[in-house]
Amino acid sequence: MSPSRLSRLGAKADELAKLSMDKQLRLAVTGLSGAGKTAFITSLVNQLLLGAENHQLPLWTLARKQGFLGAKRVPQPHLHLASFDYLGGMQALQSQPPRWPSPTDGVSELRLKLRYSPQSLIWRKLSHTATLNLDIVDYPGEWLLDLPLLNMTYQQWCEHIANNLQPARKAELAKNWQDLLLNIDIHSPADENTLADIAKAYTEYLHRCKDELGLHHIQPGRFVLPGELAGAPILAFFPLPPALLSEPSGSRKAQKSSYLGLLEQRFEYYKEHVVKQFYRQHFVKFDRQIVLVDCLSPLNSGHQSFCDMQLAINQILHSFNYGQTSLLRRLFAPKIDKLVFAASKADHVTPEQHDKLVQLLSQLIAEGKRHVKFEGISTQTMALASIKATQSGKVQINSQSFSALKGILQSDADSQKVTTVFPGEVPASLPKPEFWQQQGFEFSPFQAPQANSFEALPHIRIDQAIEFLLGDKFK
Amino acid sequence: MSPSRLSRLGAKADELAKLSMDKQLRLAVTGLSGAGKTAFITSLVNQLLLGAENHQLPLWTLARKQGFLGAKRVPQPHLHLASFDYLGGMQALQSQPPRWPSPTDGVSELRLKLRYSPQSLIWRKLSHTATLNLDIVDYPGEWLLDLPLLNMTYQQWCEHIANNLQPARKAELAKNWQDLLLNIDIHSPADENTLADIAKAYTEYLHRCKDELGLHHIQPGRFVLPGELAGAPILAFFPLPPALLSEPSGSRKAQKSSYLGLLEQRFEYYKEHVVKQFYRQHFVKFDRQIVLVDCLSPLNSGHQSFCDMQLAINQILHSFNYGQTSLLRRLFAPKIDKLVFAASKADHVTPEQHDKLVQLLSQLIAEGKRHVKFEGISTQTMALASIKATQSGKVQINSQSFSALKGILQSDADSQKVTTVFPGEVPASLPKPEFWQQQGFEFSPFQAPQANSFEALPHIRIDQAIEFLLGDKFK
Repeated sequence: MSPSRLSRLGAKADELAKLSMDKQLRLAVTGLSGAGKTAFITSLVNQLLLGAENHQLPLWTLARKQGFLGAKRVPQPHLHLASFDYLGGMQALQSQPPRWPSPTDGVSELRLKLRYSPQSLIWRKLSHTATLNLDIVDYPGEWLLDLPLLNMTYQQWCEHIANNLQPARKAELAKNWQDLLLNIDIHSPADENTLADIAKAYTEYLHRCKDELGLHHIQPGRFVLPGELAGAPILAFFPLPPALLSEPSGSRKAQKSSYLGLLEQRFEYYKEHVVKQFYRQHFVKFDRQIVLVDCLSPLNSGHQSFCDMQLAINQILHSFNYGQTSLLRRLFAPKIDKLVFAASKADHVTPEQHDKLVQLLSQLIAEGKRHVKFEGISTQTMALASIKATQSGKVQINSQSFSALKGILQSDADSQKVTTVFPGEVPASLPKPEFWQQQGFEFSPFQAPQANSFEALPHIRIDQAIEFLLGDKFK
Repeated sequence: MSPSRLSRLGAKADELAKLSMDKQLRLAVTGLSGAGKTAFITSLVNQLLLGAENHQLPLWTLARKQGFLGAKRVPQPHLHLASFDYLGGMQALQSQPPRWPSPTDGVSELRLKLRYSPQSLIWRKLSHTATLNLDIVDYPGEWLLDLPLLNMTYQQWCEHIANNLQPARKAELAKNWQDLLLNIDIHSPADENTLADIAKAYTEYLHRCKDELGLHHIQPGRFVLPGELAGAPILAFFPLPPALLSEPSGSRKAQKSSYLGLLEQRFEYYKEHVVKQFYRQHFVKFDRQIVLVDCLSPLNSGHQSFCDMQLAINQILHSFNYGQTSLLRRLFAPKIDKLVFAASKADHVTPEQHDKLVQLLSQLIAEGKRHVKFEGISTQTMALASIKATQSGKVQINSQSFSALKGILQSDADSQKVTTVFPGEVPASLPKPEFWQQQGFEFSPFQAPQANSFEALPHIRIDQAIEFLLGDKFK
C-alpha cells in the first residue's frame, strides 16, 4: 500500500473514531427565573418526539433533508437527579384552558435517543441509521451568579453587598434585616436562634428584591432557590456592614464561636460545598449551552430592573470565560464549545420587530462579551418563541394599518376572549432615559396555546436553535 | 499507695472517663404523619430554653432539684441538614389566632447546649457545672416502613403489594394505575414517558390511600414524602401484578432495557441508595428514641384506618429489633438504648382517661414487642400532650356531672368561641367490632393555645419523657 493511501485511510479512521465518540451530547439550558426554560425544554422535547412526521423544523438541515428518523425518551443517566417533568408540562398545555408549564427550581434532566440517517458519505457506507443520545439539563441561571464569591473573602463580600445597596428602594427593603444587626455584638458568642432569625430576614429581603423590584442579581443565588438545602445552616448566613468589620476590634481574628466567626465559616462552607460543587458536579459535564433571556419583562418593569438584568446576564457570561487566568480554569477543564443566547418570548412582539429584539440582546450582552474571551466557543444570538401563543395580524387606526398581535391575554383566561393588541416598539439598542419617561413599551403576557397530543407545538425558530446546537452532530 | 487505694482511684478514673464521654446525646423523634413530631420538638426545645426559670417540669429530677441551669441553642453539627424550624413553630403559636407549627417532611436537626450541676458527688468535686450537647433529630416514621423491602426481591415485593390490595376501597383506588399496566408488554423495551406516567399514577394512588382512607402503611414510604428526591427516576417505579411475572415468559431473565428490567433495577437502587442510606447516615447515630403515636385520629377514622395504623406501628418497631439475626444487625451496630412510646394529644381526652390511652397504646404495640427482642433497650409507654390546648372541666347532663374538656375547636378559629365538649370514652383495649358500630368516640381537633415569649408552653408529662430519655445523663 502506498504511503499516501495509508495516510488517507488513517485520516478516515480518525474521522470515524471522532464520529463514534460524538454519540453522546449534554445540552444545558439556563436563564434567570421567568426566562422560559421550562417552556423551551418542553417544546424542544415535543418537536423532537413528534418532529419526524411533523415538518415544522425547516431551519434544521437534518429534518429538512428527511434524515431525522425520530426520537424516543429513554432512562436518564442519573437516577438521583430530578427528571424534567415533560409529561406535566404537556398536561398543562393540553388542559382547558391551557396553562404554561410550571417553573422548575433546581437541576433536572431528561434523555432522548435520536435516530437519524448519517449525512456524511463515509458513515453512510457503514450504517443506514445512527443514534445520538441527547441529555437535556435544566438549571437556574441564578446559580451562576455565585461564581464571583469564589474570589472573595467574607469581608470582601460584605463590602460588595454594601456597595450595591443603592438605589433607595433597595436600601429601604434592607432596613428590616439591618436593624436586627444592631442587637448583636459580632465578637460575642453566637446565639443560634438569633443567627437563624437574621438569616431569615436577609432571605426575605432577597425575595422582596426579586418579587417587588424585579431584580435578578441576587447574592447568594441559592438563597432564593434553595432546593434540597432549604432550612439548612449552610444557607443561614448574611453580610455584615463593613463599618463593623473595619472597627479596630474587627481586625483581630474572629473567635470560632462568635457571630463573626460562624458567619465566616458558613460563607467559606457555602463557597466550597454549594458553589464549587455545582460546577464540579454539573457544569463541567455540559457540551453545549443555551442561555434564555427575557428582554421584555424588564422593559415593562422599568429602568432599574432592566439595568439589573443586564448586570445579571453579564455576570452569567463570566461562567463561560475560559481564559487561561480565569477562576473556572483553575477549577476544572471546561467542555462547552457552542453557546446560544436567545431572546425568548419573541411571539410577544410583532414579527418585523424580531431583528430589533436580537439587536437589543446583542447590546445587552456586549459588555460581558468584551470581557470574555470565548476561546474556542462559537456563539449565536437569536430571538425565538419556544411555544408560540399569538398570531400576527393588522389593526386599522385612523385608516392606517399597523402590525399587531392576536391572542388570548393571560388576564382573559376566564372569558377566553381573543384580543388584538399592538405591543409597542422594542428599542433596537439599550433604552435611553427618554424611553423610560415615555413608557414606550407595554408587554402583556398571553395565555399558552391549546396543545394536543398529535401535533407538535407551534414555535418560532426553535429549529434554528436545534441547527446551531446539534446540527454538526448528525454527520 | 496501697493496692486497694489504687484500685479505688482506678474505678473513679473509669467513672470520670465514662461521665465525660456522656456529654453528647443524639435524641431521635419520629412518628407517622400527624403524630405530632413538630409540636413535640417545639415544646421540648421551649421547655429546655425557658425551663431553668419556669418550674413546669416537676417530673424531671434534675429540674426539681434545681440542678438544671439553662439551655442555649448552638450550631448544629451537620451544616447540610435542614435545621428544625423552632422559630417558625413559635411564631405560629404566638400569632393571633395561634396556629399549630407546620409539619416537617424530612430529616431536620437542632442542637442545644444544656448546663447543669452534676448530681453525683465525685463529679461535683471536679466542677460546679457541666454541659450536655443534645442533638434533637426529627425524621418521618414512614421511612422506617421500608425496612422489610431490604429482604425482598422485586418479584416478592410485587406479591406483597398484591396481597395487601384488600379491602375493596383500596382496590378501587388502585384501578387507575393498574389499568395503565394493561397497555404495556413488560418484556418489550421500556418507554420512559410511559414509565413516568405509571409511576405518577402509582404515587397518586399512595397519596389517596393516605389522605382519603387514612392509611399509614404505605410502600415505598419515600414516595409520599420524597424530600430532595422529588421527581427523580429513583422514585419512578411501581409493582406489577404477580400474574404477569409468573407467566412462562416471566421466568426468563429480564432484558436490561425492558419494562421489567428497569423496574427491577430501580427497585434495587431504591433499596441500596434510599433505604440503606437512611439507616447508615442517620439511624446508626441515634442514642435515644421517642416514637409518637396518635391513637385518637384512627379511632375517629374507623376500623380499617385503626388496623392499618397498628400494622404500621408494629412495622416501625422492627427497626428497633437488634437481635443477632436481624436485618439491621447485618447493616450496622445499633446504639439506641432507651425508647419511649408516647400516645400524643393526651389533652384531647379527659385526664382520668390517660391511663386507658396508655393501655390502648400498650396493646397496639404488643404484637410488635413480642416479635422484637429489645436487647439492652429499656422502654417506656406513656401518654403526653406536647402543647396542651384544653382545660379539663365538668359538664352537667340531667343533673349528673361529667368530666369534659374546654378549649377553642379548630373549626371555631374565626369566632374564637370557647367550647366545652365530652370527647367520649377511649377504649382501654383494642376496640371490638361493637365499638365501631356504636361510634363510641368523637375526637375534635382543638386550636393551639396562645403562646408568648416569656412563659414556657403548657404541656402534659413532657417532663416525664425528659426524665426517662435524658435523666441518667446528668449524674
